[in-house]
Amino acid sequence: MYPDPKSVTRVTTIGAGPIGAGWAAHFLARGYDVTAYIHDTAERDSFDAIVDTGWVSLTALGLADGASRNRLRVVTDIAEAMEGAEFIQESAPERLDLKQALYKQLGEIVPPAVVIASSTSGMMMTDIQADCATPERTVIGHPFNPPYLLPLVEIIGGKKTAPEAVTWARDFYEVAGKAPLVMKKEIPGFVATRLQEALWREALHMVANGEATPEDIDIALKNGPAPRMVVQGQCMAFHVACGAGGMATNLDQFGPALKWPWTRLEAPELTQELRDRMVDGCNEIAGDRHFEDMAAERDRKIVAVLKALKEG
Amino acid sequence: MYPDPKSVTRVTTIGAGPIGAGWAAHFLARGYDVTAYIHDTAERDSFDAIVDTGWVSLTALGLADGASRNRLRVVTDIAEAMEGAEFIQESAPERLDLKQALYKQLGEIVPPAVVIASSTSGMMMTDIQADCATPERTVIGHPFNPPYLLPLVEIIGGKKTAPEAVTWARDFYEVAGKAPLVMKKEIPGFVATRLQEALWREALHMVANGEATPEDIDIALKNGPAPRMVVQGQCMAFHVACGAGGMATNLDQFGPALKWPWTRLEAPELTQELRDRMVDGCNEIAGDRHFEDMAAERDRKIVAVLKALKEG
Repeated sequence: MYPDPKSVTRVTTIGAGPIGAGWAAHFLARGYDVTAYIHDTAERDSFDAIVDTGWVSLTALGLADGASRNRLRVVTDIAEAMEGAEFIQESAPERLDLKQALYKQLGEIVPPAVVIASSTSGMMMTDIQADCATPERTVIGHPFNPPYLLPLVEIIGGKKTAPEAVTWARDFYEVAGKAPLVMKKEIPGFVATRLQEALWREALHMVANGEATPEDIDIALKNGPAPRMVVQGQCMAFHVACGAGGMATNLDQFGPALKWPWTRLEAPELTQELRDRMVDGCNEIAGDRHFEDMAAERDRKIVAVLKALKEG
Repeated sequence: MYPDPKSVTRVTTIGAGPIGAGWAAHFLARGYDVTAYIHDTAERDSFDAIVDTGWVSLTALGLADGASRNRLRVVTDIAEAMEGAEFIQESAPERLDLKQALYKQLGEIVPPAVVIASSTSGMMMTDIQADCATPERTVIGHPFNPPYLLPLVEIIGGKKTAPEAVTWARDFYEVAGKAPLVMKKEIPGFVATRLQEALWREALHMVANGEATPEDIDIALKNGPAPRMVVQGQCMAFHVACGAGGMATNLDQFGPALKWPWTRLEAPELTQELRDRMVDGCNEIAGDRHFEDMAAERDRKIVAVLKALKEG
């Protein structure tokens, strides 16, 4: 029913803010014809400014063949914006009533084989699609700001979403140069925001208690966990740091520390099942690679990142 | 009483593990004479392997004038290891009884003007220094793994530590090429580990609940928050993302979201005082810089990081 994700050439974005305009810049850079719906012509200048800003970085990273800033059309009529669209990326304001009304309207005017993805970071698709007559093709496609630079897109459907639409969105985002992550369950905050939010809440606790200043928080992150996290992620960082024993050694050795008051977040019970999921998961990521090779790769990439930051 | 931090030329490291050997590699690369105490000659091969691995990256990052892998002396006699040392970096196993006995011994044989820093990630200096006769010069100097690559060192004294020793350690680490962070209070997990641990516990909750796999966690981090966090830290990331309104806009707009179940970590009450601390802190970091310039710098650096990761 859905078209081949590789055949898509025309994308419509909705929203004039940093996310909507950032998406427009991204799709332009990947060689799509982009129609951008903005609510009001008064938003045009700030929309253009965001696209212009993004274009500098996108050019530096390398544009797709035929990509052009001129393949953008900006309109204020929603029906006109949907004409010929083969994919819709919605980044309207984060208000449920507004999104529900919008999806009701889109559900009527957008052909049902066109997938509609929402950039929402806080809402569930089950709620957003409540009044939509054709909810099967509506999914969450949540980017990270700035969406023209950070590759992650978290994808999940609502209760009425067809699994095929989720698969299609994943395939399409991959073709469109993003790093799609299909979520297992519809949970508030999705995956990346939950992790970031846990860190953020702990940071607020520390500032509230006079244990650290915002500057301390940022110095600690930029010079400690972050240069490694960008290279490995937290699971593989611990897996590789523990040598041949990997994640099993980590959990067996530091398991008791989960009970210590290192953060206000209570850890889950370290059951055998959780232990196995963590260990098996890391072993799967590692595949045939020896931990020493992974450590060497980590170091090489951290060196490259540190050099890039110094020169950047 | 303490020597000029710039005058230090001889450092002693204690410990043969990844942290102890990693520190030895770091100090060698910065041009120090390093004496490394290891508990047993059987540990020599793995100690050397870690220094060799670190040396590859340290060479790539650039060695200090006169730095040489040959300026390393490895000994198994603790008294011999302390001879002529002008700074001690202790990375013994994470057992309180063992550290307390070690600091009792060091307190007697190391001249009192020599600062002794512990790499411990889990213990308080107040506990470690309990049996030390000369505790004034003992501090925490907690690195991030691998210590030869990640710049952060978190510093704090115990109840018996002299404030001058903390200041000296900060100045010395800075001279020695690290990014020192003096903590405000002696809290479990310090600053960076608390932030990382909050994120890690949330990750374990998600895996335990079948909401994500370890692979999902790492994909989300590497492609979402991490490439930005390595450039900005979480406070300035939010400050700059909110445009001219900065952190104030962030807290006013997303404050209610602190009550949402985005992570299992309960947020602190967003009091006026906490709000002001966050806003003032970010404004201080920003100084005279306009948010658009900071956003442009962020983008330029993320581009450099993404390119470095691709080529690395």
